[in-house]
Amino acid sequence: MTRAAGIDVGGTKCLGVVIDLDADVQSGPVVLKQVREVTPHAAQLVDVLALLAGELGDTDSLGIGVPGLITLHGVMRASPNIAGSLDVPVAPDLAARLGRRVSVDNDGNAAALAEWRYGAGRGAKNLWMVTLGTGIGGGQVLNGVVQRGVNGFAGEIGHMVVNPDGPRCTCGRKGCWEVYASGRGLGMLGSGEPGESIIERARHGDADAVTVLEAYARWVAIGLSNITNFSDPDVIVIGGGVSQAADIVLPMVQRWFVETLYSPEQRTHPELRAAQMGEIAGAIGAALLPHFSS
Amino acid sequence: MTRAAGIDVGGTKCLGVVIDLDADVQSGPVVLKQVREVTPHAAQLVDVLALLAGELGDTDSLGIGVPGLITLHGVMRASPNIAGSLDVPVAPDLAARLGRRVSVDNDGNAAALAEWRYGAGRGAKNLWMVTLGTGIGGGQVLNGVVQRGVNGFAGEIGHMVVNPDGPRCTCGRKGCWEVYASGRGLGMLGSGEPGESIIERARHGDADAVTVLEAYARWVAIGLSNITNFSDPDVIVIGGGVSQAADIVLPMVQRWFVETLYSPEQRTHPELRAAQMGEIAGAIGAALLPHFSS
Repeated sequence: MTRAAGIDVGGTKCLGVVIDLDADVQSGPVVLKQVREVTPHAAQLVDVLALLAGELGDTDSLGIGVPGLITLHGVMRASPNIAGSLDVPVAPDLAARLGRRVSVDNDGNAAALAEWRYGAGRGAKNLWMVTLGTGIGGGQVLNGVVQRGVNGFAGEIGHMVVNPDGPRCTCGRKGCWEVYASGRGLGMLGSGEPGESIIERARHGDADAVTVLEAYARWVAIGLSNITNFSDPDVIVIGGGVSQAADIVLPMVQRWFVETLYSPEQRTHPELRAAQMGEIAGAIGAALLPHFSS
Repeated sequence: MTRAAGIDVGGTKCLGVVIDLDADVQSGPVVLKQVREVTPHAAQLVDVLALLAGELGDTDSLGIGVPGLITLHGVMRASPNIAGSLDVPVAPDLAARLGRRVSVDNDGNAAALAEWRYGAGRGAKNLWMVTLGTGIGGGQVLNGVVQRGVNGFAGEIGHMVVNPDGPRCTCGRKGCWEVYASGRGLGMLGSGEPGESIIERARHGDADAVTVLEAYARWVAIGLSNITNFSDPDVIVIGGGVSQAADIVLPMVQRWFVETLYSPEQRTHPELRAAQMGEIAGAIGAALLPHFSS
Protein backbone atom coordinates (compact mmCIF):
# COMPACT_ATOMS: atom_id res chain seq x y z
CA MET A 1 0.00 0.00 0.00
CA THR A 2 1.29 3.46 -0.96
CA ARG A 3 0.45 5.86 1.88
CA ALA A 4 0.28 9.41 0.58
CA ALA A 5 -0.03 12.28 3.08
CA GLY A 6 -1.55 15.63 2.16
CA ILE A 7 -2.14 18.85 4.06
CA ASP A 8 -4.44 21.64 2.91
CA VAL A 9 -3.61 25.04 4.36
CA GLY A 10 -6.84 27.01 4.56
CA GLY A 11 -7.55 30.52 5.74
CA THR A 12 -8.69 29.26 9.15
CA LYS A 13 -7.58 25.63 9.49
CA CYS A 14 -5.01 23.19 8.16
CA LEU A 15 -6.45 19.77 7.33
CA GLY A 16 -4.19 16.75 6.96
CA VAL A 17 -5.01 13.32 5.54
CA VAL A 18 -3.33 10.07 4.70
CA ILE A 19 -4.81 8.21 1.72
CA ASP A 20 -4.19 4.80 0.23
CA LEU A 21 -2.93 5.67 -3.23
CA ASP A 22 -3.30 2.08 -4.48
CA ALA A 23 -7.00 1.78 -3.69
CA ASP A 24 -9.48 1.63 -6.57
CA VAL A 25 -10.25 5.19 -7.66
CA GLN A 26 -13.86 4.42 -8.63
CA SER A 27 -14.97 4.23 -5.00
CA GLY A 28 -13.39 7.57 -4.09
CA PRO A 29 -10.38 8.18 -1.88
CA VAL A 30 -9.63 5.78 0.97
CA VAL A 31 -8.78 8.07 3.87
CA LEU A 32 -6.65 6.30 6.47
CA LYS A 33 -6.18 9.20 8.85
CA GLN A 34 -7.36 12.79 9.30
CA VAL A 35 -5.94 15.53 11.53
CA ARG A 36 -6.37 19.29 11.80
CA GLU A 37 -4.85 22.41 13.37
CA VAL A 38 -5.67 26.10 13.38
CA THR A 39 -3.86 28.00 10.60
CA PRO A 40 -1.20 30.16 12.25
CA HIS A 41 0.53 33.37 11.22
CA ALA A 42 2.88 32.66 8.32
CA ALA A 43 5.87 32.85 10.68
CA GLN A 44 4.61 29.71 12.48
CA LEU A 45 3.30 27.93 9.39
CA VAL A 46 6.25 25.57 9.00
CA ASP A 47 6.04 24.65 12.72
CA VAL A 48 2.38 23.72 12.39
CA LEU A 49 3.00 21.79 9.15
CA ALA A 50 5.82 19.84 10.84
CA LEU A 51 3.49 19.06 13.74
CA LEU A 52 0.76 17.84 11.37
CA ALA A 53 3.25 15.78 9.38
CA GLY A 54 4.26 14.13 12.68
CA GLU A 55 0.63 13.37 13.53
CA LEU A 56 0.12 11.86 10.05
CA GLY A 57 3.04 9.54 10.75
CA ASP A 58 5.42 7.77 8.45
CA THR A 59 4.12 7.94 4.89
CA ASP A 60 5.49 7.41 1.38
CA SER A 61 5.01 10.98 0.27
CA LEU A 62 3.95 14.37 1.56
CA GLY A 63 2.22 17.10 -0.40
CA ILE A 64 0.90 20.46 0.75
CA GLY A 65 -1.61 22.80 -0.82
CA VAL A 66 -1.33 26.47 0.06
CA PRO A 67 -3.47 29.39 -1.11
CA GLY A 68 -1.71 32.08 -3.10
CA LEU A 69 1.23 32.20 -5.44
CA ILE A 70 3.58 29.26 -4.88
CA THR A 71 6.79 28.97 -6.87
CA LEU A 72 8.03 25.74 -8.44
CA HIS A 73 10.40 25.48 -5.48
CA GLY A 74 7.56 25.61 -2.96
CA VAL A 75 8.11 29.19 -1.82
CA MET A 76 4.92 31.03 -0.88
CA ARG A 77 5.39 34.37 -2.63
CA ALA A 78 2.17 35.90 -1.33
CA SER A 79 -1.13 34.63 -0.01
CA PRO A 80 -4.19 36.84 0.40
CA ASN A 81 -5.52 34.75 3.30
CA ILE A 82 -2.48 34.16 5.49
CA ALA A 83 -1.02 37.02 7.51
CA GLY A 84 2.66 37.78 6.87
CA SER A 85 2.91 35.39 3.97
CA LEU A 86 5.40 37.19 1.72
CA ASP A 87 8.22 34.90 0.59
CA VAL A 88 7.92 32.01 3.02
CA PRO A 89 10.12 29.10 1.86
CA VAL A 90 7.57 26.46 2.91
CA ALA A 91 8.96 23.48 0.99
CA PRO A 92 12.68 24.09 1.59
CA ASP A 93 12.24 24.80 5.34
CA LEU A 94 9.85 21.93 5.93
CA ALA A 95 12.00 19.48 3.93
CA ALA A 96 15.04 20.47 5.99
CA ARG A 97 13.08 20.14 9.24
CA LEU A 98 11.60 16.75 8.40
CA GLY A 99 14.51 15.34 6.43
CA ARG A 100 12.23 14.28 3.59
CA ARG A 101 10.97 15.54 0.24
CA VAL A 102 7.90 17.77 0.36
CA SER A 103 5.80 18.96 -2.61
CA VAL A 104 4.12 22.32 -2.11
CA ASP A 105 1.74 23.82 -4.66
CA ASN A 106 -1.21 26.14 -4.94
CA ASP A 107 -4.47 24.88 -3.36
CA GLY A 108 -6.34 25.35 -6.64
CA ASN A 109 -4.01 22.91 -8.34
CA ALA A 110 -4.46 20.45 -5.48
CA ALA A 111 -8.26 20.65 -5.69
CA ALA A 112 -8.09 20.11 -9.46
CA LEU A 113 -6.09 16.91 -8.93
CA ALA A 114 -8.56 15.63 -6.33
CA GLU A 115 -11.56 16.16 -8.62
CA TRP A 116 -9.69 14.66 -11.57
CA ARG A 117 -8.73 11.49 -9.73
CA TYR A 118 -11.67 10.86 -7.42
CA GLY A 119 -14.41 13.39 -8.14
CA ALA A 120 -16.37 15.13 -10.89
CA GLY A 121 -13.45 15.10 -13.32
CA ARG A 122 -12.71 11.39 -13.35
CA GLY A 123 -11.44 10.25 -16.73
CA ALA A 124 -10.94 13.77 -18.13
CA LYS A 125 -7.99 14.23 -20.48
CA ASN A 126 -7.94 17.99 -20.21
CA LEU A 127 -9.62 19.16 -17.03
CA TRP A 128 -10.00 22.65 -15.70
CA MET A 129 -11.18 23.19 -12.17
CA VAL A 130 -12.56 26.57 -11.24
CA THR A 131 -13.22 27.39 -7.60
CA LEU A 132 -15.75 30.19 -7.25
CA GLY A 133 -15.23 31.09 -3.60
CA THR A 134 -14.58 34.46 -1.96
CA GLY A 135 -12.07 34.83 -4.78
CA ILE A 136 -11.50 32.52 -7.76
CA GLY A 137 -8.91 29.77 -7.94
CA GLY A 138 -8.12 27.49 -10.82
CA GLY A 139 -6.07 24.57 -11.96
CA GLN A 140 -5.59 22.42 -15.05
CA VAL A 141 -4.85 18.70 -15.15
CA LEU A 142 -3.65 17.83 -18.66
CA ASN A 143 -3.03 14.18 -19.53
CA GLY A 144 -2.83 13.36 -15.83
CA VAL A 145 -0.34 16.07 -14.91
CA VAL A 146 -1.19 19.26 -13.03
CA GLN A 147 0.05 22.28 -14.99
CA ARG A 148 2.26 24.69 -13.11
CA GLY A 149 3.83 27.02 -15.67
CA VAL A 150 7.37 28.34 -15.56
CA ASN A 151 7.01 30.23 -12.26
CA GLY A 152 4.43 27.89 -10.75
CA PHE A 153 1.67 30.47 -11.32
CA ALA A 154 -0.41 28.82 -14.06
CA GLY A 155 -4.15 28.73 -13.48
CA GLU A 156 -4.51 32.22 -11.96
CA ILE A 157 -7.69 32.60 -13.95
CA GLY A 158 -9.44 34.76 -11.37
CA HIS A 159 -7.32 37.63 -12.60
CA MET A 160 -8.02 37.31 -16.29
CA VAL A 161 -9.34 40.69 -17.28
CA VAL A 162 -12.84 40.52 -18.70
CA ASN A 163 -13.70 44.22 -18.52
CA PRO A 164 -10.67 46.53 -18.34
CA ASP A 165 -12.75 49.53 -17.30
CA GLY A 166 -14.80 47.60 -14.75
CA PRO A 167 -14.74 47.85 -10.95
CA ARG A 168 -11.43 47.53 -9.15
CA CYS A 169 -10.28 44.07 -8.01
CA THR A 170 -8.55 43.34 -4.69
CA CYS A 171 -5.38 42.81 -6.78
CA GLY A 172 -5.36 46.48 -7.74
CA ARG A 173 -6.33 46.15 -11.37
CA LYS A 174 -9.78 46.54 -12.91
CA GLY A 175 -12.38 44.15 -14.22
CA CYS A 176 -10.76 40.84 -13.30
CA TRP A 177 -13.08 37.84 -13.68
CA GLU A 178 -13.00 37.50 -9.88
CA VAL A 179 -14.70 40.89 -9.53
CA TYR A 180 -17.83 39.42 -11.14
CA ALA A 181 -17.81 35.64 -10.89
CA SER A 182 -16.62 35.03 -7.31
CA GLY A 183 -18.91 34.84 -4.29
CA ARG A 184 -17.95 38.45 -3.67
CA GLY A 185 -18.96 39.23 -7.26
CA LEU A 186 -22.41 37.74 -6.74
CA GLY A 187 -22.81 40.00 -3.70
CA MET A 188 -21.75 43.01 -5.76
CA LEU A 189 -24.17 42.21 -8.57
CA GLY A 190 -26.86 41.89 -5.88
CA SER A 191 -26.07 45.37 -4.52
CA GLY A 192 -24.53 44.00 -1.35
CA GLU A 193 -27.08 41.30 -0.52
CA PRO A 194 -25.24 38.12 0.51
CA GLY A 195 -24.98 35.47 -2.20
CA GLU A 196 -26.78 32.83 -0.10
CA SER A 197 -29.74 35.12 0.31
CA ILE A 198 -29.93 35.89 -3.43
CA ILE A 199 -29.79 32.18 -4.22
CA GLU A 200 -32.43 31.41 -1.62
CA ARG A 201 -34.78 34.04 -3.03
CA ALA A 202 -34.13 32.85 -6.59
CA ARG A 203 -34.99 29.31 -5.53
CA HIS A 204 -38.38 30.58 -4.41
CA GLY A 205 -38.92 32.22 -7.78
CA ASP A 206 -38.25 35.86 -6.81
CA ALA A 207 -37.87 37.61 -10.19
CA ASP A 208 -35.32 40.22 -9.02
CA ALA A 209 -33.12 37.55 -7.48
CA VAL A 210 -33.36 35.45 -10.66
CA THR A 211 -32.25 38.51 -12.67
CA VAL A 212 -29.22 39.00 -10.42
CA LEU A 213 -28.37 35.32 -10.62
CA GLU A 214 -28.67 35.36 -14.43
CA ALA A 215 -26.26 38.31 -14.59
CA TYR A 216 -23.89 36.40 -12.34
CA ALA A 217 -24.24 33.22 -14.43
CA ARG A 218 -23.39 35.22 -17.56
CA TRP A 219 -20.12 36.41 -16.03
CA VAL A 220 -19.28 32.89 -14.91
CA ALA A 221 -19.98 31.64 -18.43
CA ILE A 222 -17.80 34.30 -20.03
CA GLY A 223 -14.81 33.08 -18.05
CA LEU A 224 -15.57 29.43 -18.77
CA SER A 225 -15.82 30.26 -22.49
CA ASN A 226 -12.44 31.97 -22.35
CA ILE A 227 -10.95 28.90 -20.68
CA THR A 228 -12.46 26.80 -23.46
CA ASN A 229 -11.07 29.06 -26.20
CA PHE A 230 -7.63 28.76 -24.62
CA SER A 231 -7.50 25.08 -23.83
CA ASP A 232 -10.41 23.23 -25.39
CA PRO A 233 -10.93 21.01 -22.32
CA ASP A 234 -13.29 18.05 -22.06
CA VAL A 235 -14.42 18.82 -18.51
CA ILE A 236 -14.67 21.97 -16.40
CA VAL A 237 -15.36 21.30 -12.72
CA ILE A 238 -16.93 24.14 -10.78
CA GLY A 239 -16.26 24.23 -7.07
CA GLY A 240 -16.43 26.72 -4.24
CA GLY A 241 -19.42 28.10 -2.37
CA VAL A 242 -21.46 28.50 -5.55
CA SER A 243 -21.21 24.80 -6.35
CA GLN A 244 -23.48 24.17 -3.35
CA ALA A 245 -26.17 25.93 -5.34
CA ALA A 246 -25.27 24.06 -8.52
CA ASP A 247 -28.87 22.85 -8.97
CA ILE A 248 -30.04 26.39 -9.74
CA VAL A 249 -26.84 28.14 -10.90
CA LEU A 250 -25.35 25.51 -13.20
CA PRO A 251 -28.28 25.34 -15.65
CA MET A 252 -28.12 29.14 -15.99
CA VAL A 253 -24.36 29.03 -16.54
CA GLN A 254 -24.85 26.27 -19.10
CA ARG A 255 -27.29 28.40 -21.13
CA TRP A 256 -25.01 31.45 -21.08
CA PHE A 257 -22.02 29.28 -21.91
CA VAL A 258 -23.55 28.34 -25.27
CA GLU A 259 -24.16 32.05 -25.93
CA THR A 260 -20.62 33.12 -25.11
CA LEU A 261 -18.62 30.20 -26.55
CA TYR A 262 -16.85 30.64 -29.88
CA SER A 263 -18.28 28.47 -32.67
CA PRO A 264 -20.56 26.48 -30.34
CA GLU A 265 -22.11 24.53 -33.22
CA GLN A 266 -18.73 23.29 -34.51
CA ARG A 267 -17.52 21.44 -31.46
CA THR A 268 -18.12 19.02 -28.64
CA HIS A 269 -18.64 21.26 -25.61
CA PRO A 270 -16.76 20.64 -22.39
CA GLU A 271 -18.97 19.18 -19.71
CA LEU A 272 -19.61 21.63 -16.89
CA ARG A 273 -19.84 19.66 -13.67
CA ALA A 274 -20.27 20.61 -10.02
CA ALA A 275 -17.38 19.61 -7.76
CA GLN A 276 -18.01 16.45 -5.74
CA MET A 277 -15.19 16.24 -3.25
CA GLY A 278 -16.33 18.89 -0.79
CA GLU A 279 -14.22 20.29 1.99
CA ILE A 280 -11.68 17.49 1.89
CA ALA A 281 -10.70 18.08 -1.78
CA GLY A 282 -7.74 20.29 -0.90
CA ALA A 283 -6.13 17.77 1.46
CA ILE A 284 -6.76 14.81 -0.86
CA GLY A 285 -5.36 16.79 -3.78
CA ALA A 286 -2.34 17.83 -1.73
CA ALA A 287 -1.60 14.14 -1.16
CA LEU A 288 -1.70 13.65 -4.95
CA LEU A 289 0.73 16.50 -5.72
CA PRO A 290 3.97 14.49 -5.47
CA HIS A 291 2.55 11.89 -7.84
CA PHE A 292 0.89 13.93 -10.61
CA SER A 293 3.07 17.00 -11.10
CA SER A 294 5.73 17.37 -13.76
CA MET B 1 18.43 13.07 -43.68
CA THR B 2 14.79 13.33 -42.62
CA ARG B 3 12.88 15.23 -45.30
CA ALA B 4 9.77 16.85 -43.84
CA ALA B 5 7.24 18.44 -46.20
CA GLY B 6 4.89 21.18 -45.09
CA ILE B 7 2.15 23.16 -46.83
CA ASP B 8 0.64 26.36 -45.49
CA VAL B 9 -2.83 27.12 -46.81
CA GLY B 10 -3.25 30.88 -46.81
CA GLY B 11 -6.16 33.07 -47.82
CA THR B 12 -4.62 33.73 -51.25
CA LYS B 13 -1.82 31.19 -51.79
CA CYS B 14 -0.66 27.78 -50.65
CA LEU B 15 3.07 27.61 -49.92
CA GLY B 16 4.85 24.25 -49.75
CA VAL B 17 8.35 23.49 -48.47
CA VAL B 18 10.61 20.55 -47.81
CA ILE B 19 13.00 20.97 -44.88
CA ASP B 20 15.85 18.91 -43.56
CA LEU B 21 14.65 17.98 -40.10
CA ASP B 22 18.07 16.73 -39.00
CA ALA B 23 19.91 20.00 -39.69
CA ASP B 24 21.16 22.04 -36.74
CA VAL B 25 18.28 24.20 -35.45
CA GLN B 26 20.53 27.09 -34.43
CA SER B 27 21.09 28.18 -38.01
CA GLY B 28 17.38 28.21 -38.85
CA PRO B 29 15.48 25.85 -41.10
CA VAL B 30 17.24 24.28 -44.08
CA VAL B 31 14.73 24.61 -46.90
CA LEU B 32 15.37 22.05 -49.64
CA LYS B 33 12.49 22.97 -51.92
CA GLN B 34 9.74 25.57 -52.16
CA VAL B 35 6.58 25.55 -54.31
CA ARG B 36 3.34 27.53 -54.40
CA GLU B 37 -0.16 27.54 -55.87
CA VAL B 38 -3.16 29.85 -55.70
CA THR B 39 -5.57 28.89 -52.90
CA PRO B 40 -8.70 27.48 -54.54
CA HIS B 41 -12.32 27.22 -53.42
CA ALA B 42 -12.59 24.65 -50.65
CA ALA B 43 -14.09 22.13 -53.07
CA GLN B 44 -10.74 22.03 -54.98
CA LEU B 45 -8.50 22.32 -51.93
CA VAL B 46 -7.60 18.62 -51.71
CA ASP B 47 -6.78 18.60 -55.47
CA VAL B 48 -4.38 21.51 -55.07
CA LEU B 49 -2.81 19.98 -51.94
CA ALA B 50 -2.28 16.69 -53.79
CA LEU B 51 -0.66 18.60 -56.67
CA LEU B 52 1.66 20.45 -54.27
CA ALA B 53 2.54 17.23 -52.46
CA GLY B 54 3.50 15.78 -55.83
CA GLU B 55 5.71 18.78 -56.60
CA LEU B 56 7.37 18.45 -53.18
CA GLY B 57 8.23 14.86 -54.07
CA ASP B 58 8.87 11.84 -51.93
CA THR B 59 9.36 12.96 -48.30
CA ASP B 60 9.37 11.31 -44.89
CA SER B 61 6.36 13.19 -43.60
CA LEU B 62 3.70 15.65 -44.71
CA GLY B 63 2.03 18.28 -42.57
CA ILE B 64 -0.50 20.94 -43.56
CA GLY B 65 -1.51 24.13 -41.78
CA VAL B 66 -4.97 25.46 -42.53
CA PRO B 67 -6.67 28.58 -41.18
CA GLY B 68 -9.81 28.02 -39.12
CA LEU B 69 -11.10 25.31 -36.87
CA ILE B 70 -9.45 21.97 -37.62
CA THR B 71 -10.49 18.85 -35.75
CA LEU B 72 -8.05 16.29 -34.34
CA HIS B 73 -8.88 14.17 -37.39
CA GLY B 74 -7.87 16.92 -39.81
CA VAL B 75 -11.38 17.97 -40.81
CA MET B 76 -11.73 21.68 -41.56
CA ARG B 77 -14.91 22.59 -39.71
CA ALA B 78 -14.96 26.21 -40.84
CA SER B 79 -12.45 28.72 -42.10
CA PRO B 80 -13.18 32.43 -42.32
CA ASN B 81 -10.79 32.89 -45.28
CA ILE B 82 -11.62 29.99 -47.59
CA ALA B 83 -14.88 29.98 -49.51
CA GLY B 84 -17.10 26.96 -48.95
CA SER B 85 -14.96 25.57 -46.16
CA LEU B 86 -17.57 23.96 -43.93
CA ASP B 87 -16.67 20.39 -42.98
CA VAL B 88 -13.99 19.55 -45.52
CA PRO B 89 -12.24 16.27 -44.56
CA VAL B 90 -8.81 17.53 -45.65
CA ALA B 91 -6.64 14.94 -43.89
CA PRO B 92 -8.79 11.84 -44.58
CA ASP B 93 -9.35 12.72 -48.27
CA LEU B 94 -5.75 13.70 -48.93
CA ALA B 95 -4.39 10.65 -47.10
CA ALA B 96 -6.63 8.41 -49.21
CA ARG B 97 -5.58 10.18 -52.40
CA LEU B 98 -1.86 10.05 -51.66
CA GLY B 99 -1.78 6.73 -49.86
CA ARG B 100 0.23 8.21 -47.01
CA ARG B 101 -0.28 9.73 -43.56
CA VAL B 102 -1.02 13.46 -43.48
CA SER B 103 -1.12 15.72 -40.40
CA VAL B 104 -3.47 18.68 -40.71
CA ASP B 105 -3.74 21.35 -38.02
CA ASN B 106 -4.59 25.00 -37.55
CA ASP B 107 -2.10 27.46 -39.09
CA GLY B 108 -1.65 29.24 -35.74
CA ASN B 109 -0.39 26.00 -34.23
CA ALA B 110 1.96 25.50 -37.16
CA ALA B 111 3.40 29.01 -36.85
CA ALA B 112 3.91 28.47 -33.11
CA LEU B 113 5.95 25.33 -33.83
CA ALA B 114 8.09 27.15 -36.42
CA GLU B 115 8.95 29.97 -34.01
CA TRP B 116 9.58 27.52 -31.19
CA ARG B 117 12.01 25.39 -33.20
CA TYR B 118 13.75 27.90 -35.43
CA GLY B 119 12.67 31.42 -34.53
CA ALA B 120 11.96 33.80 -31.65
CA GLY B 121 10.83 31.05 -29.30
CA ARG B 122 13.87 28.80 -29.47
CA GLY B 123 14.45 27.03 -26.17
CA ALA B 124 11.10 28.00 -24.66
CA LYS B 125 9.48 25.43 -22.36
CA ASN B 126 6.05 26.96 -22.47
CA LEU B 127 5.62 29.11 -25.55
CA TRP B 128 2.57 30.99 -26.73
CA MET B 129 2.50 32.43 -30.19
CA VAL B 130 0.00 35.16 -30.94
CA THR B 131 -0.57 36.26 -34.53
CA LEU B 132 -2.05 39.74 -34.70
CA GLY B 133 -3.18 39.81 -38.31
CA THR B 134 -6.54 40.70 -39.82
CA GLY B 135 -7.87 38.46 -37.07
CA ILE B 136 -5.95 36.85 -34.20
CA GLY B 137 -4.54 33.34 -34.21
CA GLY B 138 -2.73 31.54 -31.44
CA GLY B 139 -0.91 28.40 -30.48
CA GLN B 140 0.90 26.92 -27.51
CA VAL B 141 3.97 24.68 -27.58
CA LEU B 142 4.33 23.08 -24.15
CA ASN B 143 7.39 20.94 -23.46
CA GLY B 144 7.95 20.56 -27.19
CA VAL B 145 4.41 19.51 -28.06
CA VAL B 146 1.84 21.70 -29.76
CA GLN B 147 -1.37 21.77 -27.71
CA ARG B 148 -4.54 20.85 -29.57
CA GLY B 149 -7.25 20.33 -26.96
CA VAL B 150 -9.93 17.67 -27.09
CA ASN B 151 -11.58 18.93 -30.30
CA GLY B 152 -8.42 20.34 -31.83
CA PHE B 153 -9.57 23.90 -31.07
CA ALA B 154 -7.12 24.96 -28.35
CA GLY B 155 -5.47 28.35 -28.83
CA GLU B 156 -8.52 30.21 -30.19
CA ILE B 157 -7.46 33.17 -28.11
CA GLY B 158 -8.74 35.77 -30.55
CA HIS B 159 -12.21 35.01 -29.27
CA MET B 160 -11.53 35.35 -25.58
CA VAL B 161 -14.02 37.93 -24.41
CA VAL B 162 -12.35 40.98 -22.89
CA ASN B 163 -15.34 43.32 -22.91
CA PRO B 164 -18.71 41.56 -23.04
CA ASP B 165 -20.58 44.75 -23.90
CA GLY B 166 -18.04 45.90 -26.48
CA PRO B 167 -18.40 46.12 -30.28
CA ARG B 168 -19.54 43.05 -32.17
CA CYS B 169 -16.93 40.60 -33.47
CA THR B 170 -17.07 38.88 -36.86
CA CYS B 171 -17.88 35.69 -34.91
CA GLY B 172 -21.20 37.17 -33.79
CA ARG B 173 -20.39 37.76 -30.15
CA LYS B 174 -19.25 40.99 -28.50
CA GLY B 175 -15.94 42.29 -27.22
CA CYS B 176 -13.65 39.46 -28.34
CA TRP B 177 -9.94 40.27 -28.03
CA GLU B 178 -9.77 40.21 -31.84
CA VAL B 179 -12.14 43.20 -31.99
CA TYR B 180 -9.43 45.34 -30.35
CA ALA B 181 -6.03 43.74 -30.77
CA SER B 182 -6.07 42.56 -34.41
CA GLY B 183 -5.00 44.69 -37.35
CA ARG B 184 -8.71 45.36 -37.85
CA GLY B 185 -8.88 46.46 -34.21
CA LEU B 186 -6.10 48.99 -34.70
CA GLY B 187 -8.04 50.42 -37.62
CA MET B 188 -11.18 50.63 -35.47
CA LEU B 189 -9.35 52.38 -32.63
CA GLY B 190 -8.01 54.80 -35.26
CA SER B 191 -11.52 55.61 -36.50
CA GLY B 192 -11.01 53.78 -39.76
CA GLU B 193 -7.52 54.98 -40.63
CA PRO B 194 -5.44 52.01 -41.85
CA GLY B 195 -3.07 50.54 -39.26
CA GLU B 196 0.02 51.11 -41.43
CA SER B 197 -0.81 54.80 -41.66
CA ILE B 198 -1.33 55.14 -37.89
CA ILE B 199 2.00 53.40 -37.26
CA GLU B 200 3.75 55.58 -39.81
CA ARG B 201 2.40 58.77 -38.24
CA ALA B 202 3.31 57.52 -34.74
CA ARG B 203 6.84 56.84 -35.94
CA HIS B 204 7.07 60.50 -36.88
CA GLY B 205 5.91 61.54 -33.45
CA ASP B 206 2.31 62.50 -34.28
CA ALA B 207 0.66 62.76 -30.85
CA ASP B 208 -2.80 61.61 -31.96
CA ALA B 209 -1.35 58.57 -33.68
CA VAL B 210 0.71 57.74 -30.58
CA THR B 211 -2.46 57.96 -28.48
CA VAL B 212 -4.25 55.51 -30.78
CA LEU B 213 -1.27 53.17 -30.77
CA GLU B 214 -1.06 53.31 -26.95
CA ALA B 215 -4.76 52.37 -26.73
CA TYR B 216 -4.09 49.51 -29.12
CA ALA B 217 -1.01 48.39 -27.16
CA ARG B 218 -3.08 48.34 -23.96
CA TRP B 219 -5.60 45.96 -25.54
CA VAL B 220 -2.79 43.75 -26.84
CA ALA B 221 -1.26 43.70 -23.35
CA ILE B 222 -4.56 42.78 -21.69
CA GLY B 223 -4.77 39.64 -23.82
CA LEU B 224 -1.12 38.75 -23.22
CA SER B 225 -1.68 39.18 -19.47
CA ASN B 226 -4.66 36.86 -19.64
CA ILE B 227 -2.54 34.28 -21.46
CA THR B 228 0.06 34.63 -18.73
CA ASN B 229 -2.50 34.22 -15.95
CA PHE B 230 -3.72 31.05 -17.63
CA SER B 231 -0.48 29.40 -18.57
CA ASP B 232 2.50 31.18 -17.00
CA PRO B 233 4.64 30.85 -20.15
CA ASP B 234 8.31 31.78 -20.46
CA VAL B 235 7.99 33.26 -23.95
CA ILE B 236 5.20 34.90 -25.93
CA VAL B 237 5.99 35.40 -29.60
CA ILE B 238 4.03 38.11 -31.37
CA GLY B 239 3.56 37.70 -35.10
CA GLY B 240 1.31 39.02 -37.84
CA GLY B 241 1.28 42.38 -39.54
CA VAL B 242 1.85 44.27 -36.31
CA SER B 243 5.12 42.44 -35.67
CA GLN B 244 6.58 44.36 -38.62
CA ALA B 245 6.17 47.47 -36.47
CA ALA B 246 7.58 45.73 -33.41
CA ASP B 247 10.20 48.45 -32.90
CA ILE B 248 7.51 50.98 -31.97
CA VAL B 249 4.60 48.76 -30.81
CA LEU B 250 6.41 46.19 -28.67
CA PRO B 251 7.87 48.69 -26.14
CA MET B 252 4.37 50.12 -25.64
CA VAL B 253 2.90 46.64 -25.22
CA GLN B 254 5.67 45.82 -22.77
CA ARG B 255 4.83 48.83 -20.57
CA TRP B 256 1.10 48.06 -20.56
CA PHE B 257 1.82 44.40 -19.91
CA VAL B 258 3.41 45.24 -16.55
CA GLU B 259 0.33 47.34 -15.69
CA THR B 260 -2.15 44.62 -16.58
CA LEU B 261 -0.32 41.51 -15.35
CA TYR B 262 -1.38 39.95 -12.04
CA SER B 263 1.28 40.20 -9.31
CA PRO B 264 3.99 41.53 -11.66
CA GLU B 265 6.48 41.98 -8.81
CA GLN B 266 6.21 38.35 -7.68
CA ARG B 267 7.28 36.61 -10.86
CA THR B 268 9.64 36.26 -13.75
CA HIS B 269 7.75 37.80 -16.65
CA PRO B 270 7.44 35.98 -19.95
CA GLU B 271 9.63 37.49 -22.62
CA LEU B 272 7.60 39.22 -25.31
CA ARG B 273 9.39 38.74 -28.60
CA ALA B 274 8.63 39.68 -32.19
CA ALA B 275 8.25 36.74 -34.57
CA GLN B 276 11.33 36.07 -36.70
CA MET B 277 10.25 33.54 -39.26
CA GLY B 278 8.28 35.81 -41.58
CA GLU B 279 6.03 34.62 -44.34
CA ILE B 280 7.49 31.13 -44.44
CA ALA B 281 6.65 30.33 -40.78
CA GLY B 282 3.37 28.61 -41.65
CA ALA B 283 4.90 26.21 -44.16
CA ILE B 284 7.92 25.42 -41.96
CA GLY B 285 5.60 24.85 -39.00
CA ALA B 286 3.33 22.66 -41.10
CA ALA B 287 6.35 20.45 -41.85
CA LEU B 288 6.93 20.15 -38.08
CA LEU B 289 3.35 19.13 -37.26
CA PRO B 290 3.78 15.36 -37.70
CA HIS B 291 6.80 15.44 -35.38
CA PHE B 292 5.73 17.68 -32.50
CA SER B 293 2.04 16.98 -31.92
CA SER B 294 0.63 14.61 -29.33
